[in-house]
Parts: sequence; C-alpha cells; structure tokens
Amino acid sequence: MSTEKIPDPIFTLTTGPVDAYPAVLRALGRPVLYDYDPAFQQTYETVSRKVQKAFRSKSMPVILQGEPVLGLEAAAASLLAKGDVVLNLASGVYGAGFAFWAARYCAEVIEIRVPFNDVIDPQSVADMLKARPEIRVVAVCHHDTPSGTINPVAEIGRIVRDHGALLLVDAVSSFGGMDVLPEAVHADLFVTGPNKCMGCPPGLSLLHVSDAAWAKMKANPDAPTASILSILDWENAWRADQPFPFTPSVAEINGLEAALDLYLEEGPEAVWARHALTARACRAGIIAAGLALWPAREAIASPTTTAVRVPDGMDDAQIRAEARRRYGVVFSSGRGETLGKLIRIGHMGPTARPIYAVVAVTALVGTMIALGATGLDLGAGVAAAMKEIDASL
Amino acid sequence: MSTEKIPDPIFTLTTGPVDAYPAVLRALGRPVLYDYDPAFQQTYETVSRKVQKAFRSKSMPVILQGEPVLGLEAAAASLLAKGDVVLNLASGVYGAGFAFWAARYCAEVIEIRVPFNDVIDPQSVADMLKARPEIRVVAVCHHDTPSGTINPVAEIGRIVRDHGALLLVDAVSSFGGMDVLPEAVHADLFVTGPNKCMGCPPGLSLLHVSDAAWAKMKANPDAPTASILSILDWENAWRADQPFPFTPSVAEINGLEAALDLYLEEGPEAVWARHALTARACRAGIIAAGLALWPAREAIASPTTTAVRVPDGMDDAQIRAEARRRYGVVFSSGRGETLGKLIRIGHMGPTARPIYAVVAVTALVGTMIALGATGLDLGAGVAAAMKEIDASL
Amino acid sequence: MSTEKIPDPIFTLTTGPVDAYPAVLRALGRPVLYDYDPAFQQTYETVSRKVQKAFRSKSMPVILQGEPVLGLEAAAASLLAKGDVVLNLASGVYGAGFAFWAARYCAEVIEIRVPFNDVIDPQSVADMLKARPEIRVVAVCHHDTPSGTINPVAEIGRIVRDHGALLLVDAVSSFGGMDVLPEAVHADLFVTGPNKCMGCPPGLSLLHVSDAAWAKMKANPDAPTASILSILDWENAWRADQPFPFTPSVAEINGLEAALDLYLEEGPEAVWARHALTARACRAGIIAAGLALWPAREAIASPTTTAVRVPDGMDDAQIRAEARRRYGVVFSSGRGETLGKLIRIGHMGPTARPIYAVVAVTALVGTMIALGATGLDLGAGVAAAMKEIDASL
Amino acid sequence: MSTEKIPDPIFTLTTGPVDAYPAVLRALGRPVLYDYDPAFQQTYETVSRKVQKAFRSKSMPVILQGEPVLGLEAAAASLLAKGDVVLNLASGVYGAGFAFWAARYCAEVIEIRVPFNDVIDPQSVADMLKARPEIRVVAVCHHDTPSGTINPVAEIGRIVRDHGALLLVDAVSSFGGMDVLPEAVHADLFVTGPNKCMGCPPGLSLLHVSDAAWAKMKANPDAPTASILSILDWENAWRADQPFPFTPSVAEINGLEAALDLYLEEGPEAVWARHALTARACRAGIIAAGLALWPAREAIASPTTTAVRVPDGMDDAQIRAEARRRYGVVFSSGRGETLGKLIRIGHMGPTARPIYAVVAVTALVGTMIALGATGLDLGAGVAAAMKEIDASL
Repeated sequence: MSTEKIPDPIFTLTTGPVDAYPAVLRALGRPVLYDYDPAFQQTYETVSRKVQKAFRSKSMPVILQGEPVLGLEAAAASLLAKGDVVLNLASGVYGAGFAFWAARYCAEVIEIRVPFNDVIDPQSVADMLKARPEIRVVAVCHHDTPSGTINPVAEIGRIVRDHGALLLVDAVSSFGGMDVLPEAVHADLFVTGPNKCMGCPPGLSLLHVSDAAWAKMKANPDAPTASILSILDWENAWRADQPFPFTPSVAEINGLEAALDLYLEEGPEAVWARHALTARACRAGIIAAGLALWPAREAIASPTTTAVRVPDGMDDAQIRAEARRRYGVVFSSGRGETLGKLIRIGHMGPTARPIYAVVAVTALVGTMIALGATGLDLGAGVAAAMKEIDASL
Repeated sequence: MSTEKIPDPIFTLTTGPVDAYPAVLRALGRPVLYDYDPAFQQTYETVSRKVQKAFRSKSMPVILQGEPVLGLEAAAASLLAKGDVVLNLASGVYGAGFAFWAARYCAEVIEIRVPFNDVIDPQSVADMLKARPEIRVVAVCHHDTPSGTINPVAEIGRIVRDHGALLLVDAVSSFGGMDVLPEAVHADLFVTGPNKCMGCPPGLSLLHVSDAAWAKMKANPDAPTASILSILDWENAWRADQPFPFTPSVAEINGLEAALDLYLEEGPEAVWARHALTARACRAGIIAAGLALWPAREAIASPTTTAVRVPDGMDDAQIRAEARRRYGVVFSSGRGETLGKLIRIGHMGPTARPIYAVVAVTALVGTMIALGATGLDLGAGVAAAMKEIDASL
Repeated sequence: MSTEKIPDPIFTLTTGPVDAYPAVLRALGRPVLYDYDPAFQQTYETVSRKVQKAFRSKSMPVILQGEPVLGLEAAAASLLAKGDVVLNLASGVYGAGFAFWAARYCAEVIEIRVPFNDVIDPQSVADMLKARPEIRVVAVCHHDTPSGTINPVAEIGRIVRDHGALLLVDAVSSFGGMDVLPEAVHADLFVTGPNKCMGCPPGLSLLHVSDAAWAKMKANPDAPTASILSILDWENAWRADQPFPFTPSVAEINGLEAALDLYLEEGPEAVWARHALTARACRAGIIAAGLALWPAREAIASPTTTAVRVPDGMDDAQIRAEARRRYGVVFSSGRGETLGKLIRIGHMGPTARPIYAVVAVTALVGTMIALGATGLDLGAGVAAAMKEIDASL
Repeated sequence: MSTEKIPDPIFTLTTGPVDAYPAVLRALGRPVLYDYDPAFQQTYETVSRKVQKAFRSKSMPVILQGEPVLGLEAAAASLLAKGDVVLNLASGVYGAGFAFWAARYCAEVIEIRVPFNDVIDPQSVADMLKARPEIRVVAVCHHDTPSGTINPVAEIGRIVRDHGALLLVDAVSSFGGMDVLPEAVHADLFVTGPNKCMGCPPGLSLLHVSDAAWAKMKANPDAPTASILSILDWENAWRADQPFPFTPSVAEINGLEAALDLYLEEGPEAVWARHALTARACRAGIIAAGLALWPAREAIASPTTTAVRVPDGMDDAQIRAEARRRYGVVFSSGRGETLGKLIRIGHMGPTARPIYAVVAVTALVGTMIALGATGLDLGAGVAAAMKEIDASL
C-alpha cells in the first residue's frame, strides 16, 4: 500500500457507486436511534411508504439491509424452487450472471442469449415460452450496466404475464433514472437499490414483490428464513408496530429518506428527463468526437450509462487512470466479457445533469488525444453535446 | 401509523444500535467514492489495517457488508461442514440461538446450557470435550447481551485449543468495550461489529479468522462463495490491488475509519476502563436504589450492559415507554426468554461515560417510582453511583 | 499550549455558546452558495420571514453578520444620537455594561442600578422618566445572564411607551427560551441571537426595529452606514431582489434556518415550557441539595439560566474544572462583578430538557461534595428535581 | 418572493462566496463547545498557529469574527490616525473603495488611480512618496477582484518599506490561491479571509499585523477598543489562557481548522499551482473561443479570477442567468464601475482545478452562442483550455 494518501477525484462519473446528493450525505449523519425506538420505527414505516410512492405500487416494498447483490441473491434463493424451470435472458454480463444464482436453486435454467451489445427481442421470449411452457420464472436484467443497454422489459413483462410465469427484474441501475416501475412492467420480483440513480451510498436493496411472488415464496419450502437471504422475514417489517428480523442499517435508512424526498419533490418525470438528456448529450458528444458507442444502436443505449468502445490499440485501464490523473474524472470500466472493450460514463443521480456530459466528453476524448489517439475532434464533441442540451431548453 | 412525527429521544442508553460518535456521524457524510477508485481502495486497505490494529492480530481481518447477524450466519455457513459435531455453549438467548444456524450446516449440535442469568463453567466445556472428543467446533457468545453476562471466553478458548477444536466467538457487543482480543482468547472465528462499543451505526461485521479457520473453510465444499454469506470471497479484498466480491458499503467504511481512529487514539485500555467504570457505577446505583441485577452475581455482569430485573408486578414495556416520555431516555428490553423479565442499560461507545450511569439510574428508578413502585430510593442510587465514579478518580 | 489534545466535554451546560441542535449542525454543512445566487437570495428572504414569524412582529427583522455583541454595539451606535439622554437600567453586569457603549454615542447616560441579584422595579423607571422627561431612550437587559435574573421588561416597556421614549431591549439569552416578543414588550430595538436558546453556533444577531426606531436612526446623522456597525444598511437586505451591504455568513444563515424550522415546528410555547420546566427542576434540586440560588428570590430567576451561589470557602474555577474532569460537565462562570460568586447552569436550546437538570444538579453538587463541601445532600437534590419534573407530566 | 424553491446550481464558479471543501463543510458540524471550554481554547490557539504557518510569519495572526469587510474596516479604523496622510492605490473598485473608509479616519487620502483594467506601476508609488514624504500609510488591494487583476504588491511593499511608511494590503481574494505572504510583501497590516481561496464559508477575517502596525495602533487614541471594529482587543486572544473580547464564531473556527489542514497538507505551492493552471487554461479557452479578457494584458490577470469582457450588445445579467438556467453554472458579475462590462469566473479553493476551466469556458461561451452571439468558437475554446492543461502534466 502506498503510504501517501491518494487525493480524491474531482468528478465521479461512474456507474455506481456514484457520489451521493449533498442532502443524502448530511442525512447519513442524523443521530443513530435504537431500532426499536418509536421514532425510528415510525421513520422506517415512513421510508417504506415513500419507496412505495416511488414505485407507484399498490403493495408495500421490502427493504433489505445490503446493497443490491443481496437483493438479487435473495430473490433467486426465495423465489426459485427446486423444481422450477427458469428462463434467463442474457444480453450482458449481469443478466447472464444471474444464471449462476438461479442454477443454485432451481431445476433448469434455460437461456436466451444475444450479443452483449444488443438487447433481448421480446418475440424470442414469446417463442421460448411457447416452446417450453413449463417455464415458471423469467429473469431479466433491465439495464445491463456493463453494456449500457436497456432491455424492453415492459414488453417482455406483458408476454411473461400472458404466459402465466413470474417475472424477476433486475432494475438496479435503471430505477430512479428512467421510467421503469414494477407494476407497469409486470414485475413480480423487482430488485433495485438507492445507490445508483437515487444518489445514495451502497448498502440497501429495494424490492417490489407481487402477490403472486409472495405466494410462490411462501409455498417454497427452501425459501430462506432466519437468514440475511430471507425476503419473507421482512414482509411486515415496514410496519411501525412490527419487529425487524435483525437490526436495519439505521444511517442508510436515514440517507434513503433524504434521497426519496429529493426524488419525489423534484418529480420522477423531471428526474428521468435529466437522466435522458444527459445521456443524449453525452452520446452526441462521443459520436461527434469520433468515438463509437458500445450498444449496437443508439435506441437501446441506456439513459443512465453511456458505454463507449475503446478504440483499437488503446488500453482502457490506462485511459481511465490518465483521465483521473489529468482531469480528476473517474469512469467505470467494463465487467467480465466487456472488460477492456469499453469505458462507461455514468449518468446517475447527482451527475445526471447535462453539464456533466460535457465534462465526460472532454475528459474522455481529451485523455485519448493526450495518449496519442488520432482522428478525434474534441471541439466537435463538445459542440455536439452542447447542441443537444440547448435543443432541450 | 401516527401522522405526527415522534420526537427523537434525548439519550439512547440501549444495547445497540447506540448513537454514534459525532466524528463518526460526520465521516458518514464524506463524498462517496467509486469502489474501484484508487483513493477508496486505499481507504479500504487502511481501514482493514486499523481493524487489525484494534484486533491486535497477526492476520488481516475480514469486513463483511452487513451488521453482525450477517457475520454470525456467514460464520456458521462457512466454518461448519456437513459432518461436524459442534458444541454450542448456551448461557443466554443469543448463545442458545446460534444452535439454530449451526444445526443448518453440521451433523450434530451438542449444547451445554446454564440458566440465562449465569455463565458457562469452563470445566463443563473441558468435561464435554473429553466426553465427546469428536467435537470439531465450539461456539460461544462472549457477551450474551439479552442477559448482560460475560462468559469466560479466554479460559474456554484455552481448553478448546488444547483439545484441538476450533473456537467461534460472538463478541459483537463486547469487543471495543472490554479486553477481548481474538488471538488472546484463542478464537478461530471471531465475529464483532462496529455498531456497539465502537460507536458506529449498524451495517458492517468485523471478523478475525485464524489460519486454522481459513483452512477449514477452504476445505469445506459447502462454504458459501459468490454469496453475501461468503467469508472466503473477502479473504483478499482488504488489499488495495484486489477486487471486491461486490460493492462495499462505502459510507459505513468511512464511518468505521473515524471510529477506529477515535478508538486507537484514545487508547483501547482507556476505552475499556470507561466502559467498566460506567457499568460499575450503574450497578452500584441500581443496587443501592433497591433494584436487583439480572446476572446471578456481579462478577459476571457485563461492562457494556447492565441488565436490571423488572420488579414483580411491573411491566417492562410500560417502564421503558414512560422513561422515554418523561425523561427522553431509551432503554433496551430483554429478548426471547428474558423479554419482560429485565430492562437493559447499554454502556457502549459514546454512552460509556460515567455520567450516563447517573442518567440511567435516575431515569429508570425515577420512572418506576412515578409508576408506583415502592421501596425504591433514588437518592441512594444516585449517591452510590457517584461514589463509585469518584472512587475511580 | 499543551501538546495533547484536550478531549471534548460530554455535556455543555453553559449559558452560551451552547451545543447546537443536530439538525442545525447538519445544516451548517449545506453547500455554500454565492450570496447573489437566486437560490441563496431566496433562502435569505425565507429565513428573514421565519425570524419575523418567530418574533411575531409586523415588520421585517434585520439579521446582522456577527454574534449579538455586534447587534448591541450597532444598536447603540445607530439609535443613540449625540444629544440624547439615555436611561440605562442596570441590574447586572450586562445591563450595566451597556452604559459604556451608550456613553460613546449620546449626551448623558442616567442609570438606575439595583443589586446584581435583583431586578429593576418598573415604578423606579416611571419615577425617573417623570423626573427626567427629556429621556429619549431607555435601555434594558431582559435576562442579565451573569446574574440569571429576568427584568420585567413588558411592564417597563409599557411605561416607556407611555412616556414616549424608545426602548432598547437586550434579549440575547432569553428570546427563544421564554415568552419575550419584541412588539409585546414594546421594544423599539430588540437585539437577540440564535446562539443561545435557538441552539445555533454564535455568529449572527437578530434585530427587531420598530417604525419609530427606523425613523430615529434615519434622522441620526451619526448612525453608521457603510460599516459593519450599520443597521440602516441592512434595512432592505432581507428582500430577495435587494443587494447585501456585504457578504452574509452563508453557513450560519443555513444553520439559522434549521433552528427556526425546529422552533416553529415544535411550537414556541412548547419550547418555552421545557425551558421553564428544566429551570424549575434545576432550582428545586439545587435548593434541596443545600445550595443557594444567586437571585434574591426565585420569582426573578431565569428560565434559561440557573445561577448558583458558590458556597463560602469554595473556588468557582476549581469547581468547574473538577466537574468537567470528573463528569465531563461544563458550567459557566460568573462575569465581572459576579465572577467567583456564582456558577451558572444553562438551560438553552438542546439542553433545555428536564433530564439535564438532573445531570446539572448531580455534577455540580457531586463535585462540591468531592471537593469537601459539607452539608450537601445530593440524593435530596436529585429527588427534588425529579419531583418537579414528574409534577409536570 | 417566488413561492417555489429555486434549485441549487450545479457549479458555483464565482469569485466568492465559493463552495467550501467537503471536509470544511463537515467540520462546521462539529459539536459547538463553550468558548471558555479548555478544549475550545486549545483549538483556537491551534487554529491561530496554523494561520501563522500558512502566513509563514514570525508573529501570531489575528482572527476577527466577521468576513473580510470587517477586517478591512477594522484595519482602517485601527491603523489610521486623525493626522495621517494616506496613499491609496486605486486600480479597481475595491482598491478605490478603500478611500471611503480611509477618509473617515485620517487627515488626507492621496490617490494614485489607473484604469480599472490595469495595475499600479510601482514607480508611480515611489514618485508619490518622494513628492509627499509625509505619507504614513500606503493602502493597496492586491487582487482587485472586480477587475481580476493583480497588483505588484511585493515591489510596492519594498518601496513603501524603504520610505518608512506602513503598508496595508487587502489580500482577501488572493491569499491561499497564489504566492502572497504578509512578510514577504512587507505588509504591516495584511487582511484576508478563509472564504475565498481557502474554501471556507464567509464569516471570518485573518490578519497579519507587523510590530510597527501594532505600535501604531496602540499609539492611536482613536483605534477602536471594546468594539467589533477593534483589532487591539484580539492581540492576545489566540492564547489558550487568555480571554476572548467576545464570543468567537465557534463553527467557523472549526471550519477554518479543516481548511488550514487541507491547505498545509496539500502544500501551499501545490495549491497555488493548481490555481494558476486553472486560470491559465481558462484564459486560453476564453481567448481561443473569441472572447476578450478584461485585464489590459494577460500578465496582470489574476490566478484566482478570470474577468471576461462582455461582448458589445450583450447583457451580462442575462448571460449569467442563462448560464445558470441552461447549465447550472453560476458566475460573478462585475461590481461598481465594472458592473455590466465583465463577467467573472472564480478559480478559488475547490474550483481551482483545471477541469473547471473547461466547464467555465463551455458554459460561458455556450450561453453566449445560445443567446445569439456570433463569431465564437466553443470547440476552439475547449481545445485551447485542454491544451494548456495537458501542457502542464
């Protein structure tokens, strides 16, 4: 370990963790109450109701006390039963990766896989469900962050519902940054977290559970209880007069409340719009500067992440290190299969503001030029990003 | 849910969550860095090294991203193998409860049980190990919080080591508040958290793992990996140049660093001394006021929790609610078997300062008197607590 | 300077600065905006309107950018003109001290002085105004903090108004902790600050200015302008569309807003009631323990400060130092004439909660006993304080 | 007042107040201690010593409890005596404005005035001192913020010292952002504040006072004492064992300590270098985009402020409002004579990082283009700024 303290970056333009909103950072510092103090129990119910409001759902959500990988693992462990046949939709590293957890708990995992710069065709889901009518659960990653692509989850949801299967949606890095609501996409188990587009630190999972999903979990003899992996344990924990299965993360709950207040006061549609605009400006800048997007076509590009192809002959780690050293700007790498092939610019929460698109384009293109890339035009990139922003005003 | 906001209490004299140190609350609000940012990776290694320093251990600790129930469940899942015979020492609700997790993962759980106001006799452990030499793991809860009693873990540890079994210690609510160090008590898996005597919010587990425990976990085919329950996944995560299995709780790590700085700067021995003095003063006050301790004898009473018997005919929930309403002071109830029988006063972290013993005695005895208890002498209680404090100066 | 860091005390039971409310401490950390940013200009107007609401006044207040000594010096410099005859009411160190500033700016300062453990008799004011009808301004310190006594400012105000003079009220350490409102007491210039009963850090003055006072200041050729001492410069600064004379203290304004929100949400009457109760319990405890109050009679004792006579033969500095060392409790000393004769316990803002009366009595009496005082009964003191608290519930 | 809350801007690129460093914002929320608490007295001395270290001076500094206009007014009031002849150097609105205060306190104010886009020629000072040998005090504004120009204060200082007069330096918005140290520039009274390049909120003044200045103030019968305007009152207040003239601004002092720690740990030379680079990149970008700097030549342009001429036919208020609305970026206007003629970009403290130059150029040029300006080339501007940054690495 280097003995000298590495200075903080200036801008964290990653795909999560992202920097939290200032009001969230302050809320983390509220006095820590005893979890059974009536004031905290009330807060917990209030926060749960605000999550419900953000979800626009009829039922109460579940808050799990760990970042969304907990939510996803718990979803697999709880929802999937030994005999289940599961259809896993793999359009990226995260979606494909879910099969690992699914396989642990069910009888068979069928996969529809597309190249990791593309998205799932709903028709292929319909076809598969027809071919394999015994499929009980379909799992899809809405925003496969390592690819920066958005699956057509609402259409898939309709097909799954019509088939009578349950839909498990990973909306970790899309919820809060675009229009994806659990009931609107027919999700039975919808897993997200406050540490992406909601602008909180990592530490919690937020789940929507449909009646059908509750019923399936309750009927599942292997669904975890008395475990950190349990969803069932938390069914009634939102109620101020009910016990917690174990101590919730008090500070994170306080931070989440501040984030929900910001989100609901600004208005979800307004928040989504600035995520979309920032991404649009960023993509325009990236393309105009002479770089290429990773997604096969812009229509499937995420409003919360812009994945940029690493030009041939360049090293993504070097680019990211130099962008940090030169300009104090931090980007995300790819993951797994996409590692080394792309660099990701996050537009999430506090950084989902159009001016950050300019910062991102400048730092990324500028770094590549400084590292010797040819054929790039930073000025054109900035101008294109600005044009997109100005067109929206 | 009441629609009016319930005001915060004034003093949270519970056994956890306890209020955090002001410096910890501020540290939670540090900018949230990307987990793979070199500055955060460095911080994570630095924090791990400070945990090691606090543990006074030769090996590096593991930080798990959930409050200590995660640490304990992960310990059971990782350390215990299908064929193991486990000796579980049950002197209280938490110790006894561990058998539930243990049974999930091993062949047989043998129990030594004592009344829940007493502690384990090391000789009984020696006898049992002799009687059942196949015992591979012994599990003990050092401070059984629902009873406010301290097991003689160092003596037990010596016996277990001499026998050649592994020792799993739950030191969640004792570490940081008294002299209990993983290697000194011969613990192979030592589970604690920063949310008790270290004065952090709940959200992390801190583990010491001995070489033997690492070896046993690695040899255990059922030890979780690619799971929130995995300890193995985190073995090298402390290193700045190694990846995290999943995103750590950045804000909690920042808070933990502040807590470790406070702890190491004040000096562990000084911190333990003020925990001990606060508890001593509290016990003196409670007894002088005419109440009884829950522990069978004062020698086994915890320096971090004072458990007070609820007088016959009184209702513990009413007492706690009235103490909050009248004086703004919050106490903990019992748990499970001890629920209703005792009230617990926490002396943990920021509240482990002698003056809080006076506040606790005043609020508890005062409430009982206000509720009609007879034979109690508040003045005598306060005087006795003060005498104990003054004697130490 | 000692090279080792002196640890913070546990309880700051002083008469100011007092510890701030947690929500105020967090608000101080809001992002610092440019003073001419529309968001800050709006905040400044909003805060001014909340001060007005707390003042329950018809006119807009003035916020000066320095703690209340600035407010008081500015009041003297602005309101008093060269030819004025001023009546200064001196029942304590602060009231008497105002003559120093008054004399700097006016023709003559007449004084009514009473012993510093007593308060002004309104009749003496009426008599003096009759004897010296040329008196233009009457100055009174409502709560003479170094004595812990409360002058009958409403009655004095009525007399002054009937006489046609202007009334200048120092309500620095009473406003927010008891029923003292500028217009209700007929104050023309009312000076207070957020750093006492409002629970903010020191750094601002809050002024109410009557129409007559504005007129007099505007007619005063020597009233400061283009100066930190100017009140006139700030007349319209509360308006979002008007410039600031100089940069306001942005962070303190943010803290003040949080304090006003707390105050108005809890309800002024409720806030005053807990100040009164805390003081009443404290006085009961002090007297029952065998100590004497400084005020000549309890009826004039302040609800925000309890001044306790130092027993003969004891040293106040030693008592305060020992109370801090032993119990972590900090008290205030006397000032000027009262220095060494009394010790002051503050009941202001966050510490104006009854349980703190018990802490104060315990720490003060306990320290004296530990230092060898005889004839004191700590138990009786605590019991009496508790009885007062319980009687209120 | 609009009833809807105006959202915060994204980037405050002003010339002060500027946003504070995150560590400063957190430090403002430290518990508020009693000013006479030994821990706070120690802190005050520690902070004073750190100011001294930042000043690299032999003598102890004075901290005044109000933003630097207090420091400047107090300097005039304290240093200037009735009979003094003062030479005021006016190269901008602030420098010229000081004459107003000076005239209040001395016999005659002589002025050397240059156009407000230029700086003082040291030779003109030498000439004037020769012509008017009775000049006792020379006053100069080092960085005349409303012009963004830097006077050659070290050369002027040498001349003044050789003449035997005293030098009063306003270094409010330059200290901490460039190499200007009180003794190195021969300043007798050096006034600055932490709310510009040190990255604190406004609320304090920092003064260096030479032995000669102390002597002159002490000999000045009109130098304020017992007043907020007094410097003399605070001479020994830095000592932990000396009283404060009145309550210091506890929270601001805590914030200042954090800022000094950051400054001294990063290293003043490194801090100055990033201010200089940011300004250099900003100027390069502004010029390349087709705009003009306000300063007559780049050599006199400030490293902490870039003043940009408003193109003919454009309205500066509209430009600033649009830059905020479109991109969330806030700039400063001119002041007095420069109002409407220029727009100022601050490079102070946290925003003195090169990437902000790109943000500034983008937002300013972009806004002008969006408002219809012709002949501007945003791409060229950004490229030029980046080139300057890259050249430094």
